[in-house]
Amino acid sequence: MITIHPFKEQDWPSVWRLLEAVFRLGETYAFSPGISEAEAHKVWIEAPTAAYVAKDSENTVLGTYFIKPNQPGLGSHVCNCGYIVGDSARRKGVASMMCEHSQYEAKRLGFRAMQFNLVVSTNEEAVRLWQKLGFEIVATLPGAFKHAKKGFVDAFVMYKQLET
Amino acid sequence: MITIHPFKEQDWPSVWRLLEAVFRLGETYAFSPGISEAEAHKVWIEAPTAAYVAKDSENTVLGTYFIKPNQPGLGSHVCNCGYIVGDSARRKGVASMMCEHSQYEAKRLGFRAMQFNLVVSTNEEAVRLWQKLGFEIVATLPGAFKHAKKGFVDAFVMYKQLET
Repeated sequence: MITIHPFKEQDWPSVWRLLEAVFRLGETYAFSPGISEAEAHKVWIEAPTAAYVAKDSENTVLGTYFIKPNQPGLGSHVCNCGYIVGDSARRKGVASMMCEHSQYEAKRLGFRAMQFNLVVSTNEEAVRLWQKLGFEIVATLPGAFKHAKKGFVDAFVMYKQLET
Repeated sequence: MITIHPFKEQDWPSVWRLLEAVFRLGETYAFSPGISEAEAHKVWIEAPTAAYVAKDSENTVLGTYFIKPNQPGLGSHVCNCGYIVGDSARRKGVASMMCEHSQYEAKRLGFRAMQFNLVVSTNEEAVRLWQKLGFEIVATLPGAFKHAKKGFVDAFVMYKQLET
């Protein structure tokens, strides 16, 4: 039984463990692979409108996501989210659950659309999942991501209008 | 004779006059139309890698632009710029000059591509100019900009790889 909850500061050590593993790899997120814990806390928890955690029945943090306006002022009705699932929780539908939850939360918070700015083209599993959940690839950005192993690879902009 | 120079703090009152007129209208930039002078200084001068001014032979500021990484870390080889030309200096090629200058500067600073994230579709003059200067519309974002007069309108993502 997986449930999603608003992030609480006591979740941070578990959340940071998930983020650190993913950011250090440098394969899916633009954040510097050398990002500090304080900087990660800033971008994932402090700067966003809200952050969440997915937990199993034993209260283990399986995944996390944030939601924030993608642009200031006159572009702030479009939100942006980032999602991370721990390695040990793959193939349990956690990313899918978090993305559905984020769309519900986005509408509740007044957002009208959701935009992912830099979906790494080699992250095929994520691309397929977002497409399945109604996101369209609206742009291909040539060489826009510097993959730690593969060098410069394309990235996608993905977008979904949320029904209101 | 129009020349382009690195921004100096003494240029700020003139630059702010240009920015204020454009931001208050709410037709082309996402920044809140109610943005404060301090906040404008932060986004146009402090946060970017560099800012510039275009001046005429009498040292009057005709336009301004900034250049900054569009994403952190592994996306920081793609830059983003914003350009503003004063009303009294229109149709003199100032925007075109600044955009050419910014591409030169971007390459000098090590950027490999330039991306505009939210070109308002109703800003047809700008869209045409960027296209003329080699930028492609890589995405249309439905309703992504809340135009002060026209309500929700589409915005474009525009992208250009810089020859190195």
